[in-house]
Amino acid sequence: METISTTASFGGELLRIKHRSQACDCDMIFAIYLPPQAKEKSVPVLYWLSGLTCTDENFMQKAGAQRVAAELGIAIVCPDTSPRGTDFAGEHDSYDFGSGAGFYVDATEEPWSANYKMYDYVTRELPGLVNEHFPVNGRCGISGHSMGGHGALVCYLRNPGKYLSVSAFSPICHPSDCAWGQKALSGYLGEDRNNWKPYDAALLIVDAEEKLPLLIDQGTEDDFLSDQLKPGTLEQACIANHYPLELRMQEGYDHSYFFISTFIEDHLRHHAEALL
Amino acid sequence: METISTTASFGGELLRIKHRSQACDCDMIFAIYLPPQAKEKSVPVLYWLSGLTCTDENFMQKAGAQRVAAELGIAIVCPDTSPRGTDFAGEHDSYDFGSGAGFYVDATEEPWSANYKMYDYVTRELPGLVNEHFPVNGRCGISGHSMGGHGALVCYLRNPGKYLSVSAFSPICHPSDCAWGQKALSGYLGEDRNNWKPYDAALLIVDAEEKLPLLIDQGTEDDFLSDQLKPGTLEQACIANHYPLELRMQEGYDHSYFFISTFIEDHLRHHAEALL
Repeated sequence: METISTTASFGGELLRIKHRSQACDCDMIFAIYLPPQAKEKSVPVLYWLSGLTCTDENFMQKAGAQRVAAELGIAIVCPDTSPRGTDFAGEHDSYDFGSGAGFYVDATEEPWSANYKMYDYVTRELPGLVNEHFPVNGRCGISGHSMGGHGALVCYLRNPGKYLSVSAFSPICHPSDCAWGQKALSGYLGEDRNNWKPYDAALLIVDAEEKLPLLIDQGTEDDFLSDQLKPGTLEQACIANHYPLELRMQEGYDHSYFFISTFIEDHLRHHAEALL
Repeated sequence: METISTTASFGGELLRIKHRSQACDCDMIFAIYLPPQAKEKSVPVLYWLSGLTCTDENFMQKAGAQRVAAELGIAIVCPDTSPRGTDFAGEHDSYDFGSGAGFYVDATEEPWSANYKMYDYVTRELPGLVNEHFPVNGRCGISGHSMGGHGALVCYLRNPGKYLSVSAFSPICHPSDCAWGQKALSGYLGEDRNNWKPYDAALLIVDAEEKLPLLIDQGTEDDFLSDQLKPGTLEQACIANHYPLELRMQEGYDHSYFFISTFIEDHLRHHAEALL
């Protein structure tokens, strides 16, 4: 593990860490914000999964989360959104597949299966590294935006007991039923839709037994709302399973980090209720 | 005037505006954040001048200022850092001169004098446009970072009565005495140092008669502290003129927007004391 940079922020420290990932078989970079409380004791962690085209940097630069994390005493970890340094045919051609668009799945299709193991990386390898090398207490929650909102929901729903809190901004709720999801799931997992279900929140949540309160914010002016994100599919699935979903349709907000920054404090306080 | 984009943020609106600048004889873009209070009444404005390489976007995306501006009811205006669309020899070759580096001066040297009139643009044309087209009440303050901190200090010091409040992050305090400043001032204004003085805060503040309280934050781990920024020069000039400077050396902080975001709330409250 190599510390690329250390930056003071709200009395704590933002680190960018480069390491060799076993899961992805390549060098990966993640960011971790350690609040000032981490100098004295171990703290809980919020994992944040970013959306298409992002790296570990977008959320830390634009969401304004460190202020609240520093107040509450919560660390934040932001992984990258795909393996890097590989160069498969077409990998860098589109914003919604390949680099920057790992979709938090473990790919089974060639050539992606050699490296695109973002589900394993995010749910197993990365928390292992964080727990081993940083002053964290093992209590963690998960959240994310868009593709990362999808990732957060899937990681939570498939790992009862692992995460103590969950939320999302503008998640891709039902990837089996939208263009972004179909392109990614067929490309990484093949055409058999039975293999897509483990990565589809609207399908998974119908069978959820653990039912942590789920907070979702979604802007009404989001360009991707009706074609890609489809929160109604998740809402219907939650109703079917009596799942406690608080879906807040935020009037006038779009898909940007200006939207996230406006409501991130609510999300951090939602996680703090479970993590602290 | 053309509205390029309108984005909801903390209950208010962030607009990017494109217009033909008379001062700079080219199209210019600025950003304005209107807090929710501006829907009901006119509000004061904080002008923010950004540093080298920035556009109207950096501060709005990374500083986290909208949250506090929305609470206080203060608009924020961010101009670009240079004319755009021109293509003089060498204009785009270096990060510290030419495009992205207008230094908030009115150039007198060819070819820059045809367009690089950022002092006139920021102190006269832009406030005129803002006052004419947006729900603002004419009360304004000014702040900025690095090159923009220099700009904020100079604009304030040369226009007594125009700004009701002033602050800066990591300003270039004495541009006549650092490499960034000497390159810019000689390039835009020529070699006669008498023409540099109107753009040098440490020289101007010695003669200041209006003495609004000046808040400056400066990180101790800023890579540019001793060679370019030199807050000690401004501090000495303030002592000589009994000028009320609060210079806060912030332990461990660097030159980045992570530093700005940590302390921007203090600055907005400093301005609010005078503006509200």
